[in-house]
Amino acid sequence: MQYRNGKAEEIKIAYVGGGSRGWAWKLMSELARAEDIGGEVRLYDIDFGAAEANAVIGGLYSKAGEAKSCFRYRACRSAAEAMTGADFVIVSILPGSFEEMESDVHTPEAYGIYQSVGDTTGPGGIVRAMRTVPMMQEIAEAVKSFCPKAWVINYTNPMSLCVRTLYETFPEIRAFGCCHEVFGTQKLLASAVEELCGIEGITRQEIKVEVTGVNHFTFLIRGQYRDLDLFPLYRRFAERYAESGFTKKLDPDWRSNPFRCNHRVKMDLFLRFGAIAAADDRHLAEFCPGDWYLASPERAAQWGFSLTPVSWRKQDLQNRLAKSRRLLSGEEKPEIKSTGEEGVRQIRALLGLGDFVTNVNLPNRGQVPDLPLGAVVETNASFRDNSVTPVLAGAMPEGVRALVERIVSVQEDTVKGAILRDPNRVLRGFLHDPLVEGRTDRGEELFEKMVENTKGYLGDYSCLSLRGERV
Amino acid sequence: MQYRNGKAEEIKIAYVGGGSRGWAWKLMSELARAEDIGGEVRLYDIDFGAAEANAVIGGLYSKAGEAKSCFRYRACRSAAEAMTGADFVIVSILPGSFEEMESDVHTPEAYGIYQSVGDTTGPGGIVRAMRTVPMMQEIAEAVKSFCPKAWVINYTNPMSLCVRTLYETFPEIRAFGCCHEVFGTQKLLASAVEELCGIEGITRQEIKVEVTGVNHFTFLIRGQYRDLDLFPLYRRFAERYAESGFTKKLDPDWRSNPFRCNHRVKMDLFLRFGAIAAADDRHLAEFCPGDWYLASPERAAQWGFSLTPVSWRKQDLQNRLAKSRRLLSGEEKPEIKSTGEEGVRQIRALLGLGDFVTNVNLPNRGQVPDLPLGAVVETNASFRDNSVTPVLAGAMPEGVRALVERIVSVQEDTVKGAILRDPNRVLRGFLHDPLVEGRTDRGEELFEKMVENTKGYLGDYSCLSLRGERV
Amino acid sequence: MQYRNGKAEEIKIAYVGGGSRGWAWKLMSELARAEDIGGEVRLYDIDFGAAEANAVIGGLYSKAGEAKSCFRYRACRSAAEAMTGADFVIVSILPGSFEEMESDVHTPEAYGIYQSVGDTTGPGGIVRAMRTVPMMQEIAEAVKSFCPKAWVINYTNPMSLCVRTLYETFPEIRAFGCCHEVFGTQKLLASAVEELCGIEGITRQEIKVEVTGVNHFTFLIRGQYRDLDLFPLYRRFAERYAESGFTKKLDPDWRSNPFRCNHRVKMDLFLRFGAIAAADDRHLAEFCPGDWYLASPERAAQWGFSLTPVSWRKQDLQNRLAKSRRLLSGEEKPEIKSTGEEGVRQIRALLGLGDFVTNVNLPNRGQVPDLPLGAVVETNASFRDNSVTPVLAGAMPEGVRALVERIVSVQEDTVKGAILRDPNRVLRGFLHDPLVEGRTDRGEELFEKMVENTKGYLGDYSCLSLRGERV
Amino acid sequence: MQYRNGKAEEIKIAYVGGGSRGWAWKLMSELARAEDIGGEVRLYDIDFGAAEANAVIGGLYSKAGEAKSCFRYRACRSAAEAMTGADFVIVSILPGSFEEMESDVHTPEAYGIYQSVGDTTGPGGIVRAMRTVPMMQEIAEAVKSFCPKAWVINYTNPMSLCVRTLYETFPEIRAFGCCHEVFGTQKLLASAVEELCGIEGITRQEIKVEVTGVNHFTFLIRGQYRDLDLFPLYRRFAERYAESGFTKKLDPDWRSNPFRCNHRVKMDLFLRFGAIAAADDRHLAEFCPGDWYLASPERAAQWGFSLTPVSWRKQDLQNRLAKSRRLLSGEEKPEIKSTGEEGVRQIRALLGLGDFVTNVNLPNRGQVPDLPLGAVVETNASFRDNSVTPVLAGAMPEGVRALVERIVSVQEDTVKGAILRDPNRVLRGFLHDPLVEGRTDRGEELFEKMVENTKGYLGDYSCLSLRGERV
Repeated sequence: MQYRNGKAEEIKIAYVGGGSRGWAWKLMSELARAEDIGGEVRLYDIDFGAAEANAVIGGLYSKAGEAKSCFRYRACRSAAEAMTGADFVIVSILPGSFEEMESDVHTPEAYGIYQSVGDTTGPGGIVRAMRTVPMMQEIAEAVKSFCPKAWVINYTNPMSLCVRTLYETFPEIRAFGCCHEVFGTQKLLASAVEELCGIEGITRQEIKVEVTGVNHFTFLIRGQYRDLDLFPLYRRFAERYAESGFTKKLDPDWRSNPFRCNHRVKMDLFLRFGAIAAADDRHLAEFCPGDWYLASPERAAQWGFSLTPVSWRKQDLQNRLAKSRRLLSGEEKPEIKSTGEEGVRQIRALLGLGDFVTNVNLPNRGQVPDLPLGAVVETNASFRDNSVTPVLAGAMPEGVRALVERIVSVQEDTVKGAILRDPNRVLRGFLHDPLVEGRTDRGEELFEKMVENTKGYLGDYSCLSLRGERV
Repeated sequence: MQYRNGKAEEIKIAYVGGGSRGWAWKLMSELARAEDIGGEVRLYDIDFGAAEANAVIGGLYSKAGEAKSCFRYRACRSAAEAMTGADFVIVSILPGSFEEMESDVHTPEAYGIYQSVGDTTGPGGIVRAMRTVPMMQEIAEAVKSFCPKAWVINYTNPMSLCVRTLYETFPEIRAFGCCHEVFGTQKLLASAVEELCGIEGITRQEIKVEVTGVNHFTFLIRGQYRDLDLFPLYRRFAERYAESGFTKKLDPDWRSNPFRCNHRVKMDLFLRFGAIAAADDRHLAEFCPGDWYLASPERAAQWGFSLTPVSWRKQDLQNRLAKSRRLLSGEEKPEIKSTGEEGVRQIRALLGLGDFVTNVNLPNRGQVPDLPLGAVVETNASFRDNSVTPVLAGAMPEGVRALVERIVSVQEDTVKGAILRDPNRVLRGFLHDPLVEGRTDRGEELFEKMVENTKGYLGDYSCLSLRGERV
Repeated sequence: MQYRNGKAEEIKIAYVGGGSRGWAWKLMSELARAEDIGGEVRLYDIDFGAAEANAVIGGLYSKAGEAKSCFRYRACRSAAEAMTGADFVIVSILPGSFEEMESDVHTPEAYGIYQSVGDTTGPGGIVRAMRTVPMMQEIAEAVKSFCPKAWVINYTNPMSLCVRTLYETFPEIRAFGCCHEVFGTQKLLASAVEELCGIEGITRQEIKVEVTGVNHFTFLIRGQYRDLDLFPLYRRFAERYAESGFTKKLDPDWRSNPFRCNHRVKMDLFLRFGAIAAADDRHLAEFCPGDWYLASPERAAQWGFSLTPVSWRKQDLQNRLAKSRRLLSGEEKPEIKSTGEEGVRQIRALLGLGDFVTNVNLPNRGQVPDLPLGAVVETNASFRDNSVTPVLAGAMPEGVRALVERIVSVQEDTVKGAILRDPNRVLRGFLHDPLVEGRTDRGEELFEKMVENTKGYLGDYSCLSLRGERV
Repeated sequence: MQYRNGKAEEIKIAYVGGGSRGWAWKLMSELARAEDIGGEVRLYDIDFGAAEANAVIGGLYSKAGEAKSCFRYRACRSAAEAMTGADFVIVSILPGSFEEMESDVHTPEAYGIYQSVGDTTGPGGIVRAMRTVPMMQEIAEAVKSFCPKAWVINYTNPMSLCVRTLYETFPEIRAFGCCHEVFGTQKLLASAVEELCGIEGITRQEIKVEVTGVNHFTFLIRGQYRDLDLFPLYRRFAERYAESGFTKKLDPDWRSNPFRCNHRVKMDLFLRFGAIAAADDRHLAEFCPGDWYLASPERAAQWGFSLTPVSWRKQDLQNRLAKSRRLLSGEEKPEIKSTGEEGVRQIRALLGLGDFVTNVNLPNRGQVPDLPLGAVVETNASFRDNSVTPVLAGAMPEGVRALVERIVSVQEDTVKGAILRDPNRVLRGFLHDPLVEGRTDRGEELFEKMVENTKGYLGDYSCLSLRGERV
């Protein structure tokens, strides 16, 4: 990598999971829009063919008329090839296949446990972590070997546990986890300002938020638009829409798009606990006791969100594979546009091409003094030349601290159990998870079934038999 | 108070709740056995007649042949009369009557929530706290006015919240909370040593324990008998008796005595979490998620303990009233014997008549660094001349930290809500309580009913109407 | 205040000490350069005539051809008049006159104690604090009464103690302290990059630093220029210039300008403790044991800096008074240019007109976990719409922690003593100060003399007589 | 080891430094007085002959008429022989000879630095630590190899650094450091009670103290005799005797016994800082800035204590060697009496033969929350069956925290430098030591001289050359 004329050239980006159909193209689009950087993207994927296809597609993005940067794309057959000399490593993998995810999400339903997403927390997130953590250990080892100074940007879920594992494995790693969930709350707040103050055209970036908590279960410490404190405003907004839910004019409704919600969960949490939650309701619901919002699919629908079935994801993948074919054949042209993602902005900031402050997942070094040190928390951080430093979040908002502490404690059992390959330790967290506890008294049985269903990816857990019977 | 010939004479003890039939007589017996102290006990009770009766009975204890000390007993009509010049204040009150306790314990049953005791935690403990906290505030104010330097020994439940309230109201108060639950676990460990090592005749005092946690939900950090580490021994014991339960030969069975258990809960917690719980199973069960041990009375019976109905307590009171009459009439003689309680030993230590270390409830000043400062925790403490200082407990045993943290968080909402007379704040804790969460989705309704049932004691809660409807 | 067309108009700035000749004109210049803000500056000063003169001069700045903003200037006769409705309060006062400063700086010389500045630390800083703290209490009370939501920007020294006092007096105050000392180290690092890497034209803003410590005794945690870690580079630089000192070509030499240094102290501290100090050597020297750099004026000269005599300041004031007259008479035209100060940029960020991260003085809420909570520390902070939030600095660089801890402890004694008007408490810090301890065994005598010399400003210290004789 | 009839028999005690003339005989006397323990003492010493002589003398103690216990004494040729199977390890060694100590104590005098003891802190203590730390590492390794579960009781100075090194080397070690300095303060307080209250015959054990700080620089948190708070009493005492000093009738005067003082330093510290120091003035003086009490031998004498010259120690050794010969020849009979030391009482408590609370040196695990974790602090601890647990000391007394923090910081540099064999790191602490800083500007030169003088014991410091010249 080198600087020339105010540009950073020849930067090397290793993309683990680079065969992705979807997120990879967003990155290509964002890279193509960046005027002041250039270099090489090395695509590494267990499906080498997918990486090769993306290398071709990447080239098309670079050559598109609107492209302002010059990036080369190359498929790599090994982590060594992708990572050696890398300045950045992007990690965005699917741990296992949709078959495992099918078990993660739907097996618990027979036990009265419903999950709206199933990849972060709850039984699905925990069992997913069991197969993800060993992969993250491998990636951290590769970073240590091939590019120990590289910045590692993780997008894989369960986010907190992935970042935690990277640091547990290679404590000197320069990793952080990146997630766009908070942006949706910024947009909602912008809508609230529009609705209640009649100010039009506010972008989400103009809504200044400070967040704290764990990924997908984050809360605002402060919300501000210029001199307007958004907390009292949000109270008025929540009181107006708590019952009916809120959908912005022209926006798709949650009934037609499984990634939408009408924010009733968020507003309910605010009215009960006084804290503005900063993630999609589908995520928030999964961190709460199971009978609050997820007692049944009907209950979820009452609260204005739907459960994303894995069948939907499978169909969606078919759509994306078709798009991949169209891109490769030239039937469809790469579209270069802003995706709303911040990864490239973060890369540029790390290169010294524009400081900014945004939210990010990092091990707790004191930014949240009342959560355990080392646990991965999501707070604001200052991105500048070669550094990411958390902004002090301070004590958790008192109303939701207990909820978050409990999640952190489940996560600690999960990640430590997974690193030790000790299923009993994971089980301890599993039974204490708010979606499991109180919903079933056959938690052990459920856990064993989910482990059995996904054992193809759990081979190196030394012992999968659990402690014997309980009443 | 004054020292003469190695004795502390003319000490003044104010006993709030001094009309008690039961605990008061234990104190009288212990005081009569103490050779090196003497003075006056001032009995104060809202039922002045009961205090007067106890003053007479106290005199009989003092005059009994085996009595070694000389204490005078006097019934007082006001806190001022009882406390002015007091060296010690004993607080052992029943907040409300058994009618309120009837509601505390049994109203939740219609919602599938069963409680084995109902005075410390769970819905019963929380609503009991709502009426106890204002009484404790009053007592703390009286201490501040009439005897600010006195040692205040609380026996009232909910213990943690009572002690917490005393310190919140008068931060300079010298109060601690005293409970005998840990002693039972010492006895169980003595039995385990007998069983597995064939050593006979070990007293509970010879079993050295270090405890941590919150009252009635305490755990051993260390258990030792001479050079014998009791943790591996207890593992063998638990593995042997986890299924069958353990009852000592000759001891009454839990089926015949509602205060007994067969320790299956305790051993199950140990096998799952690696920590030796140090309270009766009836208490322990109430701190755990409701479907673990308290899903139904039958489930409790499977686990080897029964639910103490308030009708039993009412009958028991009748028995004690009868005994009171017999004592007054001379039909029954006061029996002076060791009661197993440590209150008088603590008083003597505070007077400089014998240092010792025992477990006690105090605000957390760092003795448990990973629980919030100020929360009342139960740990060992060093009792010496005019001082009680906690022994460092260190970090919570990792396996049970999450369970205890959650209780502390429920307690914080309860005590703060009660002090602020804010029922919504209390409700937040109530819904998060492990006996409530997951057992009912009509928690608000239950709370309102329980509040309504006991409103005679909740008069000064400024506003008892809760936030409106939820789905 | 209101927003219109992307501008913040009608903002109200109260300037306490607004009669200043010097700093006020810098502010006027910076305000005139800001296109997107406008409003009123209310000048309040105990010398009302000086405020009136500056009101006229402010008007001239606003009307200058290059001015882009529109600010009105008004002299006020009371704090109430200046502060009512204020959005910002700037505090930049001289506590006492140069007569008191003469005593602060020069009285200790008879005791072998030399000070290069004398307004922040050491005997001079401490006695100055004694008269400043009561003034800051008054200001904080006025803010509380007249504009409790205003942002208060302090420039007065001793900085840490002033900010500390503001928060002690009115804990909800939104105050921070602002100092340009770190900028000089950024410039030095830019020079080091130029010297050693041959890169020209780097601005100080391109040198990204994270700082920690207390004002005027701050240290870098990180120093970065793009991908260049400045710590190894600074080592080479320090090894090259530690003996000779470093002065940039064309820059004035420390011999000709009492505000210059040749950075030998800074480089020596680095070679000994591994931490890059981020303030002028004149300041740094005063925080170190007196025989390190300040044993005598000659010793200071060997280290490449000089002691600023108060006579110089008096002469400098004459020059500035003359300039004031020239500006008023029109003989000299206001010059509108960048001053290197960040105050107006901070104001704009707080108004939502451009986020940035810079160093600032704030009470420690955990940003420096190993310094006491509440002590005022200087770290980076994120400035955004209506908020200033510290960036986590983490543990102090281990090499200098002891030096800084000691200063914090002296400051604690000073500020608490001053708030309590307890000279003995201040004396405790005074004797423990590194310039005093070890330099004289007549510290009490010196302190009494300095207090006597400045007693005109110490009237409300209830008792100025110190505890009696010592050996 | 085994228990029989309430006695612990066959306990094995390894005594490192067992050739001692002095302390060993005290231990023998105390062991002989203990009725309920018995076993073997293995004497290990680099001077095997001395160990052999003590084995003989030990036998004589065991056979003395007044002896109540039965201990065998055996000289061992290796650590393995002494430690294998040991239940207790006592460490009491002289690191180097009196030649090295001569340099430690007297070399600094040429630089104006006077030391009253020179083995704990100050230049002497630091250089002594350089040669002691490697020995302690060796001992810890031997414990790890031969008796990892043994209790290790250290008496060697510098105490804090020795205990710190044991834990740094073998973190699971069960070590603590034992010192009798606090007892002297208990005796002084007993005298104060006698003097001011006219109560006769109080033993030091009846004076209940809670201490905090670092060894030889400890302070009372609480001092109590029955219901008497000793702080106000000590104030009256100090005000009475601060000028004249206090010597108990019949007690030897400090002029005639170099281990005596008249407590003026202690009383001066109290009057200045409000904290009751709990060590001999000779020790206390060394932790304070050099010009407070140790500016010259005359100054020390004014403060009522003398500097113990190493020549005195050499002469004293001759006396003790003579006594050894007399004991061996039978010319002198072993005297079995209480020595005032608590080691045997601690051993008995650890064996379950009598709980008690006393002061002891242990790594900070939170007992002093405002000193660094891991640093060795002296606080009360509860001794019981196989456990030593610190009593919570809480925050340092505010008046002396800065003084103690500084010492801890010097000690950190010393111990870390010694473990790393990095003399520059040690030098950093050396220059910051309160006896050095401010007393000389030739600290490096002094350090180099002291290192040179003792280099026979510093062989494995990889590099003894220091960073080059400074001004």
